[in-house]
Amino acid sequence: MSEEAQPTGMKGWITYRPEIKVLDCTIRDGGLMNEHKFSQDFVSGVYRTNVAAGVDYMEMGYKASKKLYSRSEVGAWRFCDEDDLRKAIGEKDPAVKLSVMADAERTDYHDDILPRDKSVLDMVRVATYIHQIPAALDMVKDAHDKGYETTVNLMAVSTVPDLELENALEALCASPVGTLYVVDSFGTFYSEQIRMLMAKFLKHAKPAGKQVGIHCHNNMQLAFANTIEAIIQGATLLDASMAGLGRGAGNCQMELLLSFLHNPKFHLRPVLQCIQDHVEPMREELRWGFAIPYMVTGHLNMHPKSAMKFMEADGYREIVKFYDSVTEKEW
Amino acid sequence: MSEEAQPTGMKGWITYRPEIKVLDCTIRDGGLMNEHKFSQDFVSGVYRTNVAAGVDYMEMGYKASKKLYSRSEVGAWRFCDEDDLRKAIGEKDPAVKLSVMADAERTDYHDDILPRDKSVLDMVRVATYIHQIPAALDMVKDAHDKGYETTVNLMAVSTVPDLELENALEALCASPVGTLYVVDSFGTFYSEQIRMLMAKFLKHAKPAGKQVGIHCHNNMQLAFANTIEAIIQGATLLDASMAGLGRGAGNCQMELLLSFLHNPKFHLRPVLQCIQDHVEPMREELRWGFAIPYMVTGHLNMHPKSAMKFMEADGYREIVKFYDSVTEKEW
Repeated sequence: MSEEAQPTGMKGWITYRPEIKVLDCTIRDGGLMNEHKFSQDFVSGVYRTNVAAGVDYMEMGYKASKKLYSRSEVGAWRFCDEDDLRKAIGEKDPAVKLSVMADAERTDYHDDILPRDKSVLDMVRVATYIHQIPAALDMVKDAHDKGYETTVNLMAVSTVPDLELENALEALCASPVGTLYVVDSFGTFYSEQIRMLMAKFLKHAKPAGKQVGIHCHNNMQLAFANTIEAIIQGATLLDASMAGLGRGAGNCQMELLLSFLHNPKFHLRPVLQCIQDHVEPMREELRWGFAIPYMVTGHLNMHPKSAMKFMEADGYREIVKFYDSVTEKEW
Repeated sequence: MSEEAQPTGMKGWITYRPEIKVLDCTIRDGGLMNEHKFSQDFVSGVYRTNVAAGVDYMEMGYKASKKLYSRSEVGAWRFCDEDDLRKAIGEKDPAVKLSVMADAERTDYHDDILPRDKSVLDMVRVATYIHQIPAALDMVKDAHDKGYETTVNLMAVSTVPDLELENALEALCASPVGTLYVVDSFGTFYSEQIRMLMAKFLKHAKPAGKQVGIHCHNNMQLAFANTIEAIIQGATLLDASMAGLGRGAGNCQMELLLSFLHNPKFHLRPVLQCIQDHVEPMREELRWGFAIPYMVTGHLNMHPKSAMKFMEADGYREIVKFYDSVTEKEW
């Protein structure tokens, strides 16, 4: 197969674009379904899977402030202490880079993010809402100065007015950030909206020498389709998770994404083994994945929290009641 | 909202194209999961739902030859006898047209398909493999002469060489058939392939004054996304089923499709009620819907029967074993 980047079009299905990287967010986004209480064994299993599958990055969790969250209430992967990371990883394989997510205004980044040469981590992903961009920029600078690769994940972009988005993209492109992410937090986008957002992000990112990434949620069973659409438009950093494990309807499924990507470095079988041995056994407890309450909030461009509460309460079979509660309130 | 057809593009998400019709194939495609043994009550429930939801067509099942199938072995919806249809429908609402599927070489159509004025049926959909096109054409003529609307559903088009497809489309466009269907029997297509096939079908269909329809399977969680892509390209007859109930990974989900289509004649709530009351209670027994064995056959452009057998045998948690069995045989 050719090592050259392929233009979009039919040829793209047969060959591949070597610049495309995959990031596994199973532990980080999946942690939103269990207060980040994954066992060391589970995290190790996912890590070894990513090594075997040829995945480029693995996100280990959040770097949350210990002033805001207590170790007695939430699991280790909300903090990603260096000790916990090293225990889960064992001997690090340099082929899989490790990232953490740092929420704007919820991370003591000056203290809690070590210089890169003292950490197993390689990348810091700053998650920010539009009104937190100045805080995010300071976090990017801090992480960049410490030697990390960086991304900014602008959350809930489906609720951001166009002018503000343009201003944010300008400010981000003037920073040292490496990758800007299109994040469909609410799982509300159709392909045409992904196309439009990718064009807008790339318009700013390309001249600034930055990459664009994509992070989708599966509320309308479009996480995989929208990730493909983003690839076609030029995304080069793709988020996915094992069996889609992630908040609410979950993320783009790693097994679908790797079966689609044609780079021979990717291997599907280890992912299936991981899903069989580690992920599916948690299905009943965690209940992530497509369900009609998530479809309803996605369709209405709402945060999934009302749907998550409904699903937790075992009311998930009463979908009409949920639909009525949401639509009566909103319209 | 405007009653005028909209061009494709962003405007299309806000307004709608009134020429787009939806066909519910719950009973027909879902029947492949239970030998067509749905109760009269279930079929009546789906029918009333389609009336309330504004769905344009409902497919009642197959018109199969009684020489090939026995009433003692398969359910009523394999045959769609006029009596059974009328019992399930009660008083017919003219807003929902009724269709049956007639398989080429498996239907005694001369005898078993009544003249339209003696039947509650409005449309005959001829399902054919590429080598059965001459038989399909005779069935179309018979149904057309009896007064029915007709479609030809060319199955497994993902396995048809391009030259044969062109020849088939030419022959079909010279017939009285009303609609040609792009059918993704194996759930193997990505959006670009849907785009290419729609262009090919429309190139023949448009000058001949025929419509193009779309029927997708959800093996790679792309049934809804590919249906949207087909709409953008010009499909006007869209297959979907309640909660996606259909063979293997199932079909495009009616609840997703109706939440996407903006024609105010469509109503989502009755569909959710139907899913809650009638469809989801059968989930454990019928086990349709996305699962990794279906993803694997879809990805390999294979008939889902091996995956269905695997799922029936309750081996559906041993996905690696299935993956190995299929890939060892095929490569």
